[in-house]
Amino acid sequence: MSERNGQLHLGAFLYPTGHHIAAWRHPDSHAGAGSDFRHYVRLARAAEAAKFDLIFLADGAGTRGDNVDFLSRTAHSYVAQFEPLTLLSALAAVTERIGLVGTASTTFNEPYHIARKFASLDHISGGRAGWNLVTSSSAHEAKNFGFDEHLAHARRYERAVEFAEVADGLWDSWDDDAFLRDKDAGRYFDPEKRHVLDHRGEFFNVRGPLNVERSPQGKPVVVQAGSSDAGKALAARTAEVIFTAQQTLADAVEFYADVKGRMAQYGREPDDLKIMPGVMPIVGKTENEAREKFDMLQSLIDPAVGLALVSTLTGGFDLSGYPLNGPIPELPETNASKSRQSLTIELARRENLTIRELYLRVAGARGHWQLVGTAEQIVDALEDRFVNYGADGYNVMPALLPGSLDDFIALVLPELRRRGLFRSEYEGRTLRENLGLRRPVSRYYRYPQETASA
Amino acid sequence: MSERNGQLHLGAFLYPTGHHIAAWRHPDSHAGAGSDFRHYVRLARAAEAAKFDLIFLADGAGTRGDNVDFLSRTAHSYVAQFEPLTLLSALAAVTERIGLVGTASTTFNEPYHIARKFASLDHISGGRAGWNLVTSSSAHEAKNFGFDEHLAHARRYERAVEFAEVADGLWDSWDDDAFLRDKDAGRYFDPEKRHVLDHRGEFFNVRGPLNVERSPQGKPVVVQAGSSDAGKALAARTAEVIFTAQQTLADAVEFYADVKGRMAQYGREPDDLKIMPGVMPIVGKTENEAREKFDMLQSLIDPAVGLALVSTLTGGFDLSGYPLNGPIPELPETNASKSRQSLTIELARRENLTIRELYLRVAGARGHWQLVGTAEQIVDALEDRFVNYGADGYNVMPALLPGSLDDFIALVLPELRRRGLFRSEYEGRTLRENLGLRRPVSRYYRYPQETASA
Repeated sequence: MSERNGQLHLGAFLYPTGHHIAAWRHPDSHAGAGSDFRHYVRLARAAEAAKFDLIFLADGAGTRGDNVDFLSRTAHSYVAQFEPLTLLSALAAVTERIGLVGTASTTFNEPYHIARKFASLDHISGGRAGWNLVTSSSAHEAKNFGFDEHLAHARRYERAVEFAEVADGLWDSWDDDAFLRDKDAGRYFDPEKRHVLDHRGEFFNVRGPLNVERSPQGKPVVVQAGSSDAGKALAARTAEVIFTAQQTLADAVEFYADVKGRMAQYGREPDDLKIMPGVMPIVGKTENEAREKFDMLQSLIDPAVGLALVSTLTGGFDLSGYPLNGPIPELPETNASKSRQSLTIELARRENLTIRELYLRVAGARGHWQLVGTAEQIVDALEDRFVNYGADGYNVMPALLPGSLDDFIALVLPELRRRGLFRSEYEGRTLRENLGLRRPVSRYYRYPQETASA
Repeated sequence: MSERNGQLHLGAFLYPTGHHIAAWRHPDSHAGAGSDFRHYVRLARAAEAAKFDLIFLADGAGTRGDNVDFLSRTAHSYVAQFEPLTLLSALAAVTERIGLVGTASTTFNEPYHIARKFASLDHISGGRAGWNLVTSSSAHEAKNFGFDEHLAHARRYERAVEFAEVADGLWDSWDDDAFLRDKDAGRYFDPEKRHVLDHRGEFFNVRGPLNVERSPQGKPVVVQAGSSDAGKALAARTAEVIFTAQQTLADAVEFYADVKGRMAQYGREPDDLKIMPGVMPIVGKTENEAREKFDMLQSLIDPAVGLALVSTLTGGFDLSGYPLNGPIPELPETNASKSRQSLTIELARRENLTIRELYLRVAGARGHWQLVGTAEQIVDALEDRFVNYGADGYNVMPALLPGSLDDFIALVLPELRRRGLFRSEYEGRTLRENLGLRRPVSRYYRYPQETASA
């Protein structure tokens, strides 16, 4: 049925007890997962055995929100869990093939530290590191870094563009063959193959060079998530993977064409970027079993949590004064993440949802695409988006961990493989090789002169 | 012979090819060790099997220096190696008992990130994390973080004091029993046991709370290295381990008494701080064998490297115009590390060394204490400092890796054990337990009211 050849890519988006907002309350959940390294080892090894391209870790550099009553009722909102770079580095030592993608903010970090840590992780892991570049939508995080007010959305993206340029430049500090390590001659490196960036810009002055040698992938894979216009422009320019959220096939196809269409102006090919929307699949051996699993999780949502979550997704607006069975009121535009805000409000308007219906719809997957059904039904939907150029793969958000990841591996992957849509063995050694991304050539590389031929 | 009871503590200070400046040129060296994770796994596991308290990683957030000819002749100066936090996190996954101490600068970091990453590492490792707090002496590092000039020595220490206070406060964000994870009641944590720091100071405004739960050690172990007056004051106030450099027993005893004597004014007991000077031991089965090993390394020192290194140790002053066989000229005071500068110059004056003699003396261990001899001779020296209260233990700086670490384990440790000076098995599960440091009580902890008794 498909005119599109090839296979799709899969990420395993790990979140302590699972992505469903009430997962931690499920009888099968490990409620202390956020501080249990062995839990993550088990998940990462399971995803690797199943040949996922990568594991993905989101991040908040601080708790998102300060409504303590709400926070105390949820394991979400980055109240207490591992910091992604330390966790991924530890997981690098106990895995061999799976990609390791972690989130770090351009708003609260220095490019030298970020370029260096991800390059170091790329070496430790033998070429499996990826950086999910975010600008951070939460004003609560800003307060942990000396800002009374959060940087405005547009300024965050201006800073992010320059941040990404600096990191990219630092990763070219050393040519691939710069380190001679010639013991007899006493030359550790070739001075000609060391490059001082000396970046001077609006946000950053960074001299360089990076003090990590060029890494196995040349550069770690750069991942982004923004769906605003500024986010799409940044992604078209610098991202190699996009993790996004679209509820419908039409929206997904439009987003895909929009972003890929913007790449030519930056001298990039469409295949240089893989679009991998988030999806929360709940699979059962029958449709009824899947529905029961989902309903079980939904029944565990505390109304106070659902309401607070909708407030967050719609831009921090406090909805607690409005009737749960009434419509979403008109909301002012805010400084929060444009993409999640508009997607959530559009969903409510399109389907004429009450506040309660909306929280039951979005609380589970927090605005991401939910699929509840049999393996065939779920693979139908995943294939549909893939063959219609709405996705190059998916970032799988297991509702409950480890249960929903195990279910996906046991039930959905065999069906994807039966249809030829997913690998049975890794194609390469590095994340880039498995994603089908080229190893970037250094900006300082000079192609050898062609030799004169007869 | 000893009036001092107890055992000494040992750190294994890992540096890619070894601490001797010419180690990378040695026939037995692994010259690419700085980017080879397996090299570090081997070292960490060997140190753990030998029951070292900890492994220690120094750091530079950038290459130290920009004399490219010098840099290209040495594997030192942080030209290219792993970033410590990523490396230690990875090593946490493949070790079980040894402490993991990494360096991070208070001058180029944000306290929220540092407090969070070390707390995360403490969880991942099951209570084995330590943070070596440095203020960074290199102006070259500053240029990677937007500073044209390095922050002055005194300002760096003022910032470090506040930085340490903020980190310490963030580590108390959650009481030990804050996380209820009560699925039925829907309470993930107890709001009364969450504490918002809301620090507002001269250098930092940090709201908190930290989004990592209180870690196995309560707080990671805080290590410091400064030997200046400001450094000693900071250490007496906040450090739990001091890594220092003294050449003579008299200096070591004076330093020890000075720092421990300052602690009372901060309400601390002398035992709350372990002083562990660096030492580079080169051991042989005979004194002659040890001497030959040392001479072999010394013979590999490129004169250009030795000269540049002395310049660095004496404060960045360029000595290349002076005769190698002449004395050290008068030098101006600089903004560099006071401790290393004065220690190096004192050494030269005391022993009336030429520039060449000085570089041969200090280039090897870069200003640290060198011991060349048999196991008995080396243990005599180590015991002497220990029983005379010049040290609580040592940070062992292997000249060549893995060879010198293996030699220390095979030859020196049995002699230390024969004299009852070093453990044969770990005393505890955490780094604090092995170092004999108390688990800190949270500032918010209220001792239970004593019940009325008859």
